[in-house]
Amino acid sequence: MALTLSQRSAHYTASPIRELLKLTDQPGMISLAGGLPAPESFPVQALRAACIDVLDTQAQGALQYGPSEGIAPLREWVAAQLRAQGVAAQADEVLITSGSQQGLDLVGRVLIDPGSTVLVERPTYLGALQAFAPYGPCFADLDDDAQGALPTLNAPAHRDARMVYLQPNFRNPTGQTLTAARRAQWAQALRGRPIALVEDNPYGDLWFDGPPPVPLAAQLPGQSILLGTFSKMLSPGLRLGYVHAPPEVIAKLTLARQAADLQTSSLTQRLVLKVLEGGLLDAQLPRIRALYRSQRDAMLAALERHMPSCVRWETPQGGMFIWLSLPEGADATALLPLALQRKVVYVPGTAFYAAGTAPRNTLRLSYATATPEQIDTAIAHLGDVFSQNQTHPHHDPSVLAA
Amino acid sequence: MALTLSQRSAHYTASPIRELLKLTDQPGMISLAGGLPAPESFPVQALRAACIDVLDTQAQGALQYGPSEGIAPLREWVAAQLRAQGVAAQADEVLITSGSQQGLDLVGRVLIDPGSTVLVERPTYLGALQAFAPYGPCFADLDDDAQGALPTLNAPAHRDARMVYLQPNFRNPTGQTLTAARRAQWAQALRGRPIALVEDNPYGDLWFDGPPPVPLAAQLPGQSILLGTFSKMLSPGLRLGYVHAPPEVIAKLTLARQAADLQTSSLTQRLVLKVLEGGLLDAQLPRIRALYRSQRDAMLAALERHMPSCVRWETPQGGMFIWLSLPEGADATALLPLALQRKVVYVPGTAFYAAGTAPRNTLRLSYATATPEQIDTAIAHLGDVFSQNQTHPHHDPSVLAA
Repeated sequence: MALTLSQRSAHYTASPIRELLKLTDQPGMISLAGGLPAPESFPVQALRAACIDVLDTQAQGALQYGPSEGIAPLREWVAAQLRAQGVAAQADEVLITSGSQQGLDLVGRVLIDPGSTVLVERPTYLGALQAFAPYGPCFADLDDDAQGALPTLNAPAHRDARMVYLQPNFRNPTGQTLTAARRAQWAQALRGRPIALVEDNPYGDLWFDGPPPVPLAAQLPGQSILLGTFSKMLSPGLRLGYVHAPPEVIAKLTLARQAADLQTSSLTQRLVLKVLEGGLLDAQLPRIRALYRSQRDAMLAALERHMPSCVRWETPQGGMFIWLSLPEGADATALLPLALQRKVVYVPGTAFYAAGTAPRNTLRLSYATATPEQIDTAIAHLGDVFSQNQTHPHHDPSVLAA
Repeated sequence: MALTLSQRSAHYTASPIRELLKLTDQPGMISLAGGLPAPESFPVQALRAACIDVLDTQAQGALQYGPSEGIAPLREWVAAQLRAQGVAAQADEVLITSGSQQGLDLVGRVLIDPGSTVLVERPTYLGALQAFAPYGPCFADLDDDAQGALPTLNAPAHRDARMVYLQPNFRNPTGQTLTAARRAQWAQALRGRPIALVEDNPYGDLWFDGPPPVPLAAQLPGQSILLGTFSKMLSPGLRLGYVHAPPEVIAKLTLARQAADLQTSSLTQRLVLKVLEGGLLDAQLPRIRALYRSQRDAMLAALERHMPSCVRWETPQGGMFIWLSLPEGADATALLPLALQRKVVYVPGTAFYAAGTAPRNTLRLSYATATPEQIDTAIAHLGDVFSQNQTHPHHDPSVLAA
């Protein structure tokens, strides 16, 4: 006797990335697959001191139920940080979330009806597709050029869109950044239309040479929903993020959040507030930027050294990812088992396409977790695999079964 | 220009309890409204020691991403605890959640289609109604008698139900416990039907004279979804709970959870595991039981002392709540402003009814948070209010506006 599951539950399918991550536990495996922050970036001592302080001085608040919106001083800290970036944010327009993924889910709950059009970059963040899909949207890809996604909203589906989802800074998976000029065009195209701009910014603080352009939210007040996270600058295991949105949207997101899981851990909020108020980021952010920059440089150097000339990539100016394009006809999914035999794992690009036909010849490499030495070793192996299989884009099935 | 929100977002409305809780911040207010655990029950020193230990010995795991299912040893701890209660539970049938409320939301996602019948007790837990409602079920009330809800599934709506939602132990809001005999009848009635039993057990550990009967899940393997929480025995602010379900349901719940917010805080899971492995509950549970028992006794004594004879209640054998019935024709919602004038807040019973017409003359009192002295003072005030308004069940509107 089987229980009857909801039709929605058919949307809940295994993430190819989370499945791949299970392989990374194998001894000797070098993972270029996950977007896991480097463990050496975690501010362990600062969090330890904050833990002790919070439990010594405010244990009752830290262990009791709290407001669904999040604690007031943390909301104020987020609002002040957004104001410093040019966004006219008030604390009561901020909802504290259990990571950005929860922000995406709540946005999906509150904005998407079955059949609503959601415009996305091509390729786009897999986690957003997973968060939105159960609410039944029609995804429509945006065209793009070297400056990023194009704000051409002339197709009927585009005109009726419920929202545009963008990662303007060091986008996952391509590493691309939307130029300031393109942001201005987007703001102009959207202004006055009943289309929400959902601006997802997990990587904006991880810039290398200089900060990315001002958030789009600064130019679209009352129409923008901005998502941020403490996962990349502090720790992803703490699960802390935030959403900034117009008051009437925040009110609905907060009520949806109450139904979903009441609130984010009171202890976690106070811990993080404590390290933020202690000024940790002043030292932490330059340290992380330097770390990821050196790992990006190691990966770029290794790619130059080991990749056959037919493989192409762009240089990301921040974030965690480099997007590789193999020659036309190559199949990054079919080549993955060969990479795994060499103890290297990456994510095939097909996972990141919402609509249309996904090209088979792309893949995402993360330089966030592996050391420069591991990166060089892994890229050398991948260079071998891609070189040896240039003329056999369609794999031998016996290899995949190995 | 307003953004277009989803039709679903109309289901997200303010919880009357959360709105009432805002009043409890007023100076001098005694709250009998919330189900907030007593702050003196929080094991602050044990959590402080666990924090230090975890960050000293396993910081990398505690601050990094982890599995969506939860960390393996915590899942095993939960499974062992359930086995000790007679449920044939394996660790891989356990999903760690960010509190029981998240378990309810995930169950709603995976089981409820628009129009699915969900059978509930009358009255039932408000948080479950809020979690399920956005998925569009038709709620149907169960009839009951002195032993609890009746397993009469003869109406067409009942036969086609997707699930039965029960709180068998010290139910919120009535404090009632389903007898062992009634549990056996439920198991027999459900066995072999494609109806999930959702057994929500936040209060089972908070018994006073002896443990409640064996969980229904023990008699309905493969068909039961059992929800538990660490909120009442350790701390609600940590947001930690769990779901036990058949493997195919756990798989879907886990994928839904991945889309919703990836995972529960890695740090929180390790903290709680550390205090559990240290044997904290052996001392903590008897302490909490004694605390709530003394507060229940204080409330029962105060009710005997101060309530007019026409007010009725039952004696709960555990949990946090006493359910009051005023005379027919009285209106607990209309009387609330009079109670607030006397600096006492409670929850009118109408909030807890899913379907049908809610009686206006019931209310929920919590003895979990206030001290025995505060309880006596508050009940004395309520006794005054209910006595003075016995003959005026329909309030004077000018009073409500005050």
